[in-house]
Amino acid sequence: MTLDNAHSLSTPSGTNKDICIILSHPQMGENIGAAARVMKNFGLNDLRIVSPRDRWPNKKAENMSAGGVDVIQKAKIYHTLEEAISDRQFVFATAAASRDMNKDHIFSYEIDKTLASIDRLGILFGRESSGLSNQEISLCNKIITINTESEYSSLNLAQAICIICYELYKVPDLLGSDLKTSAVNLASKGEMEIFLKHLFSSLDSRGFFKSQDRKDKMTMKLRGIFNRMDGISPKELNALHGIVSILEDK
Amino acid sequence: MTLDNAHSLSTPSGTNKDICIILSHPQMGENIGAAARVMKNFGLNDLRIVSPRDRWPNKKAENMSAGGVDVIQKAKIYHTLEEAISDRQFVFATAAASRDMNKDHIFSYEIDKTLASIDRLGILFGRESSGLSNQEISLCNKIITINTESEYSSLNLAQAICIICYELYKVPDLLGSDLKTSAVNLASKGEMEIFLKHLFSSLDSRGFFKSQDRKDKMTMKLRGIFNRMDGISPKELNALHGIVSILEDK
Repeated sequence: MTLDNAHSLSTPSGTNKDICIILSHPQMGENIGAAARVMKNFGLNDLRIVSPRDRWPNKKAENMSAGGVDVIQKAKIYHTLEEAISDRQFVFATAAASRDMNKDHIFSYEIDKTLASIDRLGILFGRESSGLSNQEISLCNKIITINTESEYSSLNLAQAICIICYELYKVPDLLGSDLKTSAVNLASKGEMEIFLKHLFSSLDSRGFFKSQDRKDKMTMKLRGIFNRMDGISPKELNALHGIVSILEDK
Repeated sequence: MTLDNAHSLSTPSGTNKDICIILSHPQMGENIGAAARVMKNFGLNDLRIVSPRDRWPNKKAENMSAGGVDVIQKAKIYHTLEEAISDRQFVFATAAASRDMNKDHIFSYEIDKTLASIDRLGILFGRESSGLSNQEISLCNKIITINTESEYSSLNLAQAICIICYELYKVPDLLGSDLKTSAVNLASKGEMEIFLKHLFSSLDSRGFFKSQDRKDKMTMKLRGIFNRMDGISPKELNALHGIVSILEDK
């Protein structure tokens, strides 16, 4: 296969899949570098990093990236996860299998079944020590899990990224064989966030949350519910805005 | 799944597969350690090393192996590849796709098709700088290849091992069938319908729909949005009921 450009994988119809890897608060430069290298091996190069622990640019990351050093040099740094994913239509959160959060999950080898209508995809990985927080997961559509031995399920960060990139590279659609095209016009994470802000402020104005503690819990829960929707169109989002506007109309 | 013993994967028929990873002349302790860790993640722990470049035991290997340190501690060191593979029935040589050698090859994701009649399997990986020599490959039965971008096909050693272990772990026979299903307590379609009725009646009472035609279209749209959520818990549904109740509270 050949790639039309850096971070897009060409489909037969000529439409592109735009896939990025997002690292939230990565701690080790070596892991960031190893991630960049394996992304390059599998034809991806949009790397986004939210608040790396160490200074950036990072020499250790560059050294470990080997032939993927351009991925490191072009990596974008963000202060918040919200900014990093604002242009994405769909974001997978990577997590170990048994999370006490009700979010639909798939296994890594099932990723091919989920991509048909998504053009701008993100795959989010958490910090080495503790993975993703529930708050971070609540911003994502779905959890993706790598099946491992239950007695020792802690994968190295770069190894987890390796497996996901490898599985993406195997997907026939992305590689340019058959199927798929019907790219529906989907709302981005940024548009969803605007809706959620609208909802929260309306609920607030009607005294829904009662206390700050309850507000924190409820907004996370609602974020989780709405971000879990598989691709929502701008029209549908408008309908939801309409409902919220009714709230404001006391 | 549970394993009968350290390095055997149980098959449904009751026979055991005995699989080892063999590293020929590995150079970096870090890679050996990362290999041990990911072997452990995927239920393998027979690691054999032919003439490591650096002294053994190797501190860097131990440090990188994390929870797989027992794999490092039990690793066997050999002077020659012949000794290391002498008890194997079948050995795969890992190599980049286009080798100027007339040896049958398979892709990593095809490994499941080759294991039926093999009990004692070895997977051989070459040194970081130059891979396996033709002489080493000639001792193996078959080449196994990981499909990568042709412009940058150089996988890190531990990443290549990661992918092979991952693929082995996916083989149903080896896994002994059952992938864990995380049975979350989910709301039923009937409970969702009760929520939707609640929502529609509240919207109606606030004059949201304006005309019957618009009502038909909007309810269908909203039904679509909410039913698209893959699995919502009763608690989450309660939160949504709470929002709707605010609508009624004029």
